[in-house]
Amino acid sequence: MSFNSFGRVFRFSTWGESHGPAIGAMVDGCPPGLALSEADVQPFLDKRRPGTSKFTTQRQEPDQVRILSGVFEGKTTGTPISLMIENVDQRSKDYGDVAKAYRPGHADYAYDAKYGFRDYRGGGRSSARETASRVAAGAVARLVIPEVTILGYVSAIGGDAIDPAHFDAAEIGNNPFFCPDAKAAARWEKLVDDARLAGSSLGAVVECVATGVPAGWGAPLYAKLDAELASAMMSINAVKGVEIGDGFAAAALRGEENADPMRPGDAGAPAFLANHAGGIAGGISTGQPVRVRVAFKPTSSILIPVETVTREGQASDIITKGRHDPCVGIRGVPVVEAMMALVLADHKLLHRAQCG
Amino acid sequence: MSFNSFGRVFRFSTWGESHGPAIGAMVDGCPPGLALSEADVQPFLDKRRPGTSKFTTQRQEPDQVRILSGVFEGKTTGTPISLMIENVDQRSKDYGDVAKAYRPGHADYAYDAKYGFRDYRGGGRSSARETASRVAAGAVARLVIPEVTILGYVSAIGGDAIDPAHFDAAEIGNNPFFCPDAKAAARWEKLVDDARLAGSSLGAVVECVATGVPAGWGAPLYAKLDAELASAMMSINAVKGVEIGDGFAAAALRGEENADPMRPGDAGAPAFLANHAGGIAGGISTGQPVRVRVAFKPTSSILIPVETVTREGQASDIITKGRHDPCVGIRGVPVVEAMMALVLADHKLLHRAQCG
Amino acid sequence: MSFNSFGRVFRFSTWGESHGPAIGAMVDGCPPGLALSEADVQPFLDKRRPGTSKFTTQRQEPDQVRILSGVFEGKTTGTPISLMIENVDQRSKDYGDVAKAYRPGHADYAYDAKYGFRDYRGGGRSSARETASRVAAGAVARLVIPEVTILGYVSAIGGDAIDPAHFDAAEIGNNPFFCPDAKAAARWEKLVDDARLAGSSLGAVVECVATGVPAGWGAPLYAKLDAELASAMMSINAVKGVEIGDGFAAAALRGEENADPMRPGDAGAPAFLANHAGGIAGGISTGQPVRVRVAFKPTSSILIPVETVTREGQASDIITKGRHDPCVGIRGVPVVEAMMALVLADHKLLHRAQCG
Amino acid sequence: MSFNSFGRVFRFSTWGESHGPAIGAMVDGCPPGLALSEADVQPFLDKRRPGTSKFTTQRQEPDQVRILSGVFEGKTTGTPISLMIENVDQRSKDYGDVAKAYRPGHADYAYDAKYGFRDYRGGGRSSARETASRVAAGAVARLVIPEVTILGYVSAIGGDAIDPAHFDAAEIGNNPFFCPDAKAAARWEKLVDDARLAGSSLGAVVECVATGVPAGWGAPLYAKLDAELASAMMSINAVKGVEIGDGFAAAALRGEENADPMRPGDAGAPAFLANHAGGIAGGISTGQPVRVRVAFKPTSSILIPVETVTREGQASDIITKGRHDPCVGIRGVPVVEAMMALVLADHKLLHRAQCG
Repeated sequence: MSFNSFGRVFRFSTWGESHGPAIGAMVDGCPPGLALSEADVQPFLDKRRPGTSKFTTQRQEPDQVRILSGVFEGKTTGTPISLMIENVDQRSKDYGDVAKAYRPGHADYAYDAKYGFRDYRGGGRSSARETASRVAAGAVARLVIPEVTILGYVSAIGGDAIDPAHFDAAEIGNNPFFCPDAKAAARWEKLVDDARLAGSSLGAVVECVATGVPAGWGAPLYAKLDAELASAMMSINAVKGVEIGDGFAAAALRGEENADPMRPGDAGAPAFLANHAGGIAGGISTGQPVRVRVAFKPTSSILIPVETVTREGQASDIITKGRHDPCVGIRGVPVVEAMMALVLADHKLLHRAQCG
Repeated sequence: MSFNSFGRVFRFSTWGESHGPAIGAMVDGCPPGLALSEADVQPFLDKRRPGTSKFTTQRQEPDQVRILSGVFEGKTTGTPISLMIENVDQRSKDYGDVAKAYRPGHADYAYDAKYGFRDYRGGGRSSARETASRVAAGAVARLVIPEVTILGYVSAIGGDAIDPAHFDAAEIGNNPFFCPDAKAAARWEKLVDDARLAGSSLGAVVECVATGVPAGWGAPLYAKLDAELASAMMSINAVKGVEIGDGFAAAALRGEENADPMRPGDAGAPAFLANHAGGIAGGISTGQPVRVRVAFKPTSSILIPVETVTREGQASDIITKGRHDPCVGIRGVPVVEAMMALVLADHKLLHRAQCG
Repeated sequence: MSFNSFGRVFRFSTWGESHGPAIGAMVDGCPPGLALSEADVQPFLDKRRPGTSKFTTQRQEPDQVRILSGVFEGKTTGTPISLMIENVDQRSKDYGDVAKAYRPGHADYAYDAKYGFRDYRGGGRSSARETASRVAAGAVARLVIPEVTILGYVSAIGGDAIDPAHFDAAEIGNNPFFCPDAKAAARWEKLVDDARLAGSSLGAVVECVATGVPAGWGAPLYAKLDAELASAMMSINAVKGVEIGDGFAAAALRGEENADPMRPGDAGAPAFLANHAGGIAGGISTGQPVRVRVAFKPTSSILIPVETVTREGQASDIITKGRHDPCVGIRGVPVVEAMMALVLADHKLLHRAQCG
Repeated sequence: MSFNSFGRVFRFSTWGESHGPAIGAMVDGCPPGLALSEADVQPFLDKRRPGTSKFTTQRQEPDQVRILSGVFEGKTTGTPISLMIENVDQRSKDYGDVAKAYRPGHADYAYDAKYGFRDYRGGGRSSARETASRVAAGAVARLVIPEVTILGYVSAIGGDAIDPAHFDAAEIGNNPFFCPDAKAAARWEKLVDDARLAGSSLGAVVECVATGVPAGWGAPLYAKLDAELASAMMSINAVKGVEIGDGFAAAALRGEENADPMRPGDAGAPAFLANHAGGIAGGISTGQPVRVRVAFKPTSSILIPVETVTREGQASDIITKGRHDPCVGIRGVPVVEAMMALVLADHKLLHRAQCG
């Protein structure tokens, strides 16, 4: 029941702070014999890497991953895979104010209340920097589920949503927002830049679809596939909501509208005529695409002063200097994808355990 | 990593099917010395009990709980508490059609795909009847957290929401909908009854607020309080979305709008001027009320025919006879409350373990 | 991390006290589609059942098991299997003295120290009566590993050991001691009866061999097959030692004496020329028989007075009335077998999870 | 349920192979605010370090530990503590033969059977080198239990046991065998050296006593303190047996001989007149010293040829070159101590979780 581990059979643990010497992940339970090298992990880290456009933090981290164990002659051995990423561009001097006062929206006060003190440098353990470890672990998870394709993208920033009619997966890589709608991407350029220049920040919605998931993954009742995805996504920094399929929209529907009717399909499996359920029924995958939506709040670190209190209990105003993403949801895309991969890999193995 | 267990130190497991002889829960890790008898559990089961109004299923279940272990001379002993509820009013003959064809929106096909066959009587293990076990376990959890008050209610049915300005907690017990807005409750009478008479069903949103939670509960990063709540809520039948605090609405805000500013408060703790975060920052409680919103899809069992396929792969239409809730979200309220209690009790003990 | 659960994928939990209304087990993670009825479980309970000879406690318990969930139309469904055994022959009045003073060798003082009080009736949760739940769960586990044959027996009582040269598996069922050596069984008649008549008790050694275990089960490094067996066996009441293969005898050997040499065998697997290792190397089964030895201390409940203290801290002498086994190790045989089956079933599934 | 993790609240995971770039441990759940630096860990690693006398392997490893996370300004933060030890003196060329044939007594064949192939360099993950990670984690665990003193020593080598009458704890550090009996240590010089020169090896018995453990630690029934210790010890390389208290000797006793009588003691706690039970009753500590005995088999790597088979199934003889301990049990002492500390730290926190 490690606090810093996730998963059941395919299980990963992460360690490290924003301004420590390194961060890392340990992946346990990985099947043996899978081809794995740093080159399989690095592209996903590069996708999440900071400093690649003006719309992300200017911290410059190469995020070079090293595999320290669990691989022999290019293949996983079935033993723990230790992944390490050195921190390079720490600037702890930015955090003098943070040591003394609590940044609203951040975990500063909560950590102090829980642990009695905190590593304030860059948010310490609560920094989104930790998500690099998830992305690295997620790259390993993808090797376990070659039958699955995972596609994440941003569907709204600051309340400005994509038009589903303009959805084009090929566009996602063509803009700095992981946006599948070219017109929305064009609007967001100004939207995000304005927020950045104003020292403000914006929330976002990330969607993620996994196709190729066979029917039968998920272990009811308390390891339901949707419950695991909810936990996985809600554990990401800044996430405040998770939906499976239609999510809250389903709460406004009638039963006949929300049904996913079936007709005879290929190979004995039903062909579904709709997917309100997001590919999961009773906590088990149905063979349809698994669809998740994730709400990211706006970055809490802003240059606009906010009322706060100091550790000594004095009133103060705080502005959060340092280098921050104006919209943390953007770089959330590879993290959401990684968590999807990690949950699915685990449940593929779990299903195999129980159902052969 | 039991599939049918939830929690870490204060941990419960459930067993039983809709039409088996009984259902039950085992609570493990409960602190010793707490006064506990059936009378502490029964009121919560009565709140969830079917057959109490025309707006819920007409299945008549007394839902009498028996405590079979873990209590001696009226106090918990620290050993497992076994709670059993006998099933009384099964009518398995209603389920002949269900044996042969898959009900859209139900777990029928997914269970067949996973396990090769299924107990089709009343949905078997996937029936919402299981939630009675959660409610029983939740009643024990409440004893562990006497400092916390949990208040659940329905905030919308079929897209018709309460008016927050009319919120009155005292109203919740005055109508069959757990509705805190008398006017909305009056509207829902007709709304739900119309759906029922039409053989249709409605979705709902349930909200739950826990006050009195001290700052410091929650174990980052993968046992964050919000991640655990998300998992807990998403594991409930028919739930498709979970929000903490402002949830998806936060994704449309700017950083300065979403901040929860602080001023000096009593006893050294900050006084928060807002609670967009829903009482949780960095996965740790802040001392503010913990707020969760949960989306229930409309009941999948409806009398309106839906296209489906048989187990043999033939096209068919199905209507789901039997006795069903026209809006399963209503009776979801005591279940959501129970899951809130179970998560909080567990995290109170976890916090005590690590932080003394 | 339930305290009262064991196993990882195939996982069981037990509940219940010696003098409560019932005891039981919940088995989670069982593969679906296995034929299971009470008739598959009862014979193992009958083997452990008290009151069958003068060499066991005279408590009369029919130990009739009921399956309350997880089985449909005679087959396991993949959902939790709830097994319940009602307690029938409680005589709590025997335990007046126990309420007031601590029985040496029992858990009385430790439970009081831990929990602040205890259910003193028959030892409450710490009673060996709980092992009936293990035996019931173990009967389910056996269905998961039809390729494995498990043979348990008593190899020594009160220091009087069987002669390996006289080992005859067919003898085990011919005497009340599960003794494979007819001559030893004859000696033990008098040995155990003398102890019983003297109000004393005797320790015993139980051995258990599992044949048919394929190479590859066990998950190093902290779920090694031998580590799991050690935990499983040491969790049994009265057990104080566990050996795998030669155990402590290996500590007196030289490397070349302790080696298990190999020669080419059938079907590509090596043929081992010895089995000092007890069928486990590096925490993984080798394909050889898995051999475990378990030390049971003498029953702590004796009629010979022992110095003790009361709950109030006064010096006292105590004799333990009630109905007790003069040698608790004898009825330990079906329990050791059950734990062997439970560990192996779990690791079969675990191996399948990771290694396909 | 990580395979490579141990513990429940205070939980550690290890990674790394004998001949990889590094090995390491991650400690999760450690209480915050404990003073910790590399200097707290290094002395325990030095105690286990190879190459310090002719009685241990000549591999030269400085075993310098680095703390990569979880400590801020000299104190634990409550977040994961990552400990890394670089491998320096690998000589993989020694292992050419091992790649082709199975070393009897080693995990070679079992790993191949399980995973399909193996990292044969120095035994890979199955090497005793991993125990350095345990020792590092154990040093952290000791900080959690300052009330406890842990004393480990070798009590027998190759069947030659110490004389309890000559036990002198002060002697343990005076010889290369962790031997508390100066006369035995003198005998072992020749015994071990003879074995070494003959290319053979010897088994050993390690004993470990923890004093200062208060009554009440341990969580029955499946997280009993003795069951956890059994699992912890049996997971150590080369261990084949575990005893608590009198262990197998208790199986030869009568009830009145094995009783630990009590008389009124100080501060309300009983004074025990004996400790056959090894400080644990019903799986819970009694306040007496916790005593464990552990059997180490002789090192399997010997220079005496043993019959084996190749990976291709051909008969062969193998001698294991490389640098090996003539008696692996000797360096087992700090490992056994570490596992004792890790189990006790975990159970201190668990007890606090449930019982306040």
